[in-house]
Amino acid sequence: MKYSNIDHLGSFKKLKTLKPLNLHSSLTKKRVSSSSIEAGADLTYNWAAMPVGDEHLAVLQQLADEQQVIAKYRAILSGQIMNTGENRQVLHHLSRGRVLGSDALVYADGEEKGEFYQQELNKVAQFALNVRNAQIVGSTGKPFTTVVQIGIGGSDLGPRALYLALQGWASGQKRKQLQAHFISNVDPDDPAQVLEHLDLESTLFILVSKSGTTQETLTNADFVRQRMIQSGIKDLNPALHMVAVTSKTSPLAASDQFLTSFFIDDYIGGRYSSTSAVGAVVLSLAYGFDVFEQLLDGSHQADVAALNTDITTNAALLDALIGVYLRNVLHLPTVAILPYSQALSRFPAHLQQLDMESNGKSVNRDGQPIDYQTGPVVFGEPGTNGQHSFYQLLHQGTDTVVLQFIGFLQSQRGSDVTTDGSTSQTKLLANLIAQIVAFATGKEDANGNKRFSGNRYSSLLFATQLNPRSLGALLAHYENKVMFQGLLWNINSFDQEGVQLGKVLATKVLQGGQGDEALEAYMELLG
Amino acid sequence: MKYSNIDHLGSFKKLKTLKPLNLHSSLTKKRVSSSSIEAGADLTYNWAAMPVGDEHLAVLQQLADEQQVIAKYRAILSGQIMNTGENRQVLHHLSRGRVLGSDALVYADGEEKGEFYQQELNKVAQFALNVRNAQIVGSTGKPFTTVVQIGIGGSDLGPRALYLALQGWASGQKRKQLQAHFISNVDPDDPAQVLEHLDLESTLFILVSKSGTTQETLTNADFVRQRMIQSGIKDLNPALHMVAVTSKTSPLAASDQFLTSFFIDDYIGGRYSSTSAVGAVVLSLAYGFDVFEQLLDGSHQADVAALNTDITTNAALLDALIGVYLRNVLHLPTVAILPYSQALSRFPAHLQQLDMESNGKSVNRDGQPIDYQTGPVVFGEPGTNGQHSFYQLLHQGTDTVVLQFIGFLQSQRGSDVTTDGSTSQTKLLANLIAQIVAFATGKEDANGNKRFSGNRYSSLLFATQLNPRSLGALLAHYENKVMFQGLLWNINSFDQEGVQLGKVLATKVLQGGQGDEALEAYMELLG
Repeated sequence: MKYSNIDHLGSFKKLKTLKPLNLHSSLTKKRVSSSSIEAGADLTYNWAAMPVGDEHLAVLQQLADEQQVIAKYRAILSGQIMNTGENRQVLHHLSRGRVLGSDALVYADGEEKGEFYQQELNKVAQFALNVRNAQIVGSTGKPFTTVVQIGIGGSDLGPRALYLALQGWASGQKRKQLQAHFISNVDPDDPAQVLEHLDLESTLFILVSKSGTTQETLTNADFVRQRMIQSGIKDLNPALHMVAVTSKTSPLAASDQFLTSFFIDDYIGGRYSSTSAVGAVVLSLAYGFDVFEQLLDGSHQADVAALNTDITTNAALLDALIGVYLRNVLHLPTVAILPYSQALSRFPAHLQQLDMESNGKSVNRDGQPIDYQTGPVVFGEPGTNGQHSFYQLLHQGTDTVVLQFIGFLQSQRGSDVTTDGSTSQTKLLANLIAQIVAFATGKEDANGNKRFSGNRYSSLLFATQLNPRSLGALLAHYENKVMFQGLLWNINSFDQEGVQLGKVLATKVLQGGQGDEALEAYMELLG
Repeated sequence: MKYSNIDHLGSFKKLKTLKPLNLHSSLTKKRVSSSSIEAGADLTYNWAAMPVGDEHLAVLQQLADEQQVIAKYRAILSGQIMNTGENRQVLHHLSRGRVLGSDALVYADGEEKGEFYQQELNKVAQFALNVRNAQIVGSTGKPFTTVVQIGIGGSDLGPRALYLALQGWASGQKRKQLQAHFISNVDPDDPAQVLEHLDLESTLFILVSKSGTTQETLTNADFVRQRMIQSGIKDLNPALHMVAVTSKTSPLAASDQFLTSFFIDDYIGGRYSSTSAVGAVVLSLAYGFDVFEQLLDGSHQADVAALNTDITTNAALLDALIGVYLRNVLHLPTVAILPYSQALSRFPAHLQQLDMESNGKSVNRDGQPIDYQTGPVVFGEPGTNGQHSFYQLLHQGTDTVVLQFIGFLQSQRGSDVTTDGSTSQTKLLANLIAQIVAFATGKEDANGNKRFSGNRYSSLLFATQLNPRSLGALLAHYENKVMFQGLLWNINSFDQEGVQLGKVLATKVLQGGQGDEALEAYMELLG
């Protein structure tokens, strides 16, 4: 396999000569209906409002082929060391099942990893069943009605986004739910806020830290334990109200402070860990393990779809390739994630981590500086809310922002109201459609203030309903898109050395500054 | 007064010749301690980690003077028509009191506006008192314990951010609180979610729409009324559970569907309306009117501080000017808002609207196209959470993102835990300090993967504690910063024509597409 910086590839040089397609009159019925790709589990990707035509597609296919991205994806699946910076395998796909075409077993740490992930899932399934059936209850005898995940970064953003995404669906299904909350920040007002209205006796905490050394998470676990002890509730035993999700080698693994532990390992990065025990425990407790299995199935379907070498049948790959064209040829630095679904309110925050932490790099996979731009800034809020907020800049600002719309034909609960002859769900979709077209085609006006230039590019991911399967596919679509972009840019999307310096300096501050003038200057300012 | 595009100004041309200050060894104790400005109500702005030295400051002062920004701010205060696109006055400052130096009374709609805003506040004060004392109760006789604001955009983001920002403070003060919730999205799952766990008999709804025609808000109010009727609760009367905040001329003003109404007007844009009745009703109900008055006082202090002509004593103006240098000379397209305070979790979303809707414009105040960049993309999440997420890109990505840190010396509740010899609050501040320094100074390393280039610019806003006064000052600081940037760029920061096209096209979709091929193509796709 050959690893080349993207600017060394002939197909990339060709790509740089291609002008963007003008969208002002391109959104014909034919183009819109023929620009869709199945992305797995009922999820569809449509790129009609992206500035690419047949010529672009041909060159993008060459780029994918020349950079051997599908072969490299298969290398990841087969357990090769693709996290070069940390000298590790990259195994998050395996957490949702073995991907078609990668039959080889994957070994690490002296165990077969597919079996390891499955065993942990089996443990989660049994535990969730016991808690939901009140076979396992709190230390004072009350059934658990609430779960609180204590974690930060990948142990927080993904699981939190997925939990919120499924609340309405579970409610519509009249499923038994345990309420979930999340504590992440070392700011003491974060745990204090969450604990303020909880009944500790019926609350189960999930401490999530792969290394078992995350400062924020350990601190917040102590905060919670202290609260339990100070509560003065007779027989309340913190150790019977907390489980751990950690690696077998972490200091937490052997601790007696937990009711039980679920294991993860070094081959699944935090931001890719939602489909491992990191997401499994909280989601299975909240909604039932069968729901989590459906989510895994959706992710697995997207993983399988991402194997296609023809880019017109591989949604994640085409999404990645168009993104490279927008980033490296049109030089657009930002991407907005715009889900027309309130349930996805925190999904953009998860994608922000997924994308920016994976591909916010300035060196290639071998640590050599590169001469082209990599990961963009990613942000977003649900529509229609954003329409009444930052869309002004998206429509009429001086910069072009890349737009990624997400939508669903049906609401989650089916509870709706008809006003002015249409339901809320119909209005929601009407707004989604209107925005795509408004951004693409714009509007001339003699009054400059009312002029819309158009050619503001967008893609659309849609499904019938936001449910565990389509959500799983959506999650994996983005994971695979980010992976493909990293492979195209020849960077390592699986480490995060950029978070280290801050940790080192924070420790220095806590130790008094250690003679570092800049640190001490700010310590005085905030002293 | 002279209105010039910024690129016509001699001082701007001079600014473009100035290289950024290298921060690698600039963060001396002297620089850090001497780069602070009082911003009102205990809030301090520090720009030590911004790439500007004495030479920059001198030119920035010239730029402020040449563009006459303080005179233009005074023109706003005195009631001149400064929202040129809509031919309106701009009066949000007046909602928190008459700013020092603008003694002239401001008239519009045949009334003196200072008195009008005060009268509405008096109504809010009395109403909030009556509700909180259970003089006014629900239609079935239960006291109100919960308030739900129904609004979108400026009627949602600012009030929501402020409500969340003060919860911990109110809790620390052991204040009586009414719980507040917010319904914004036309997605039917948004109201359904909020209503799922509410006791309708003890819930008061606040419908906020200036025009009285906002599609999402009217639809959601109907959703709520329908739920009340369908609940079958005897005597439950929707009209006795909903108040309106709207303009006197809106269709809602004379409606009998409300318990009472509070008035706003056309001279305060949605994104600047948090200190009007739009924020007053919900915050006064939740925390008491005296809390809202403290917030107004903080905003007022910041407004007064923003009058200073010397930029080294005017925090909002210097913040704006440095922003122009970063945007138009260094060409940095994005700004990250990084509050080290979980209570400010939604404050970046408010600033995102405030900034991007105000200054995301491509024409000047007269509607003429301009040749320079205006408002940046604004996004953000609380620290330390962001450190475990998108900070990777901020530290090591190929683009430089402008950083705005916010921090507080004390937590809101004072409830904390000591681990490894320090409290959570101490750890939080240690991380804040560490990040500022890490971003500015970077770190050399033989391993490219562990190299930090530094010169990632940041400012810091800080106060002793996040309380109503410092929060009010923080809010007004950003409003004034955005206003100053708009004045510097010679654009109109007070209209939002960019939101109109989408509304028109959404109506077309709801009417069947009306022969628009692009709309109909997407209607088929999502049909």
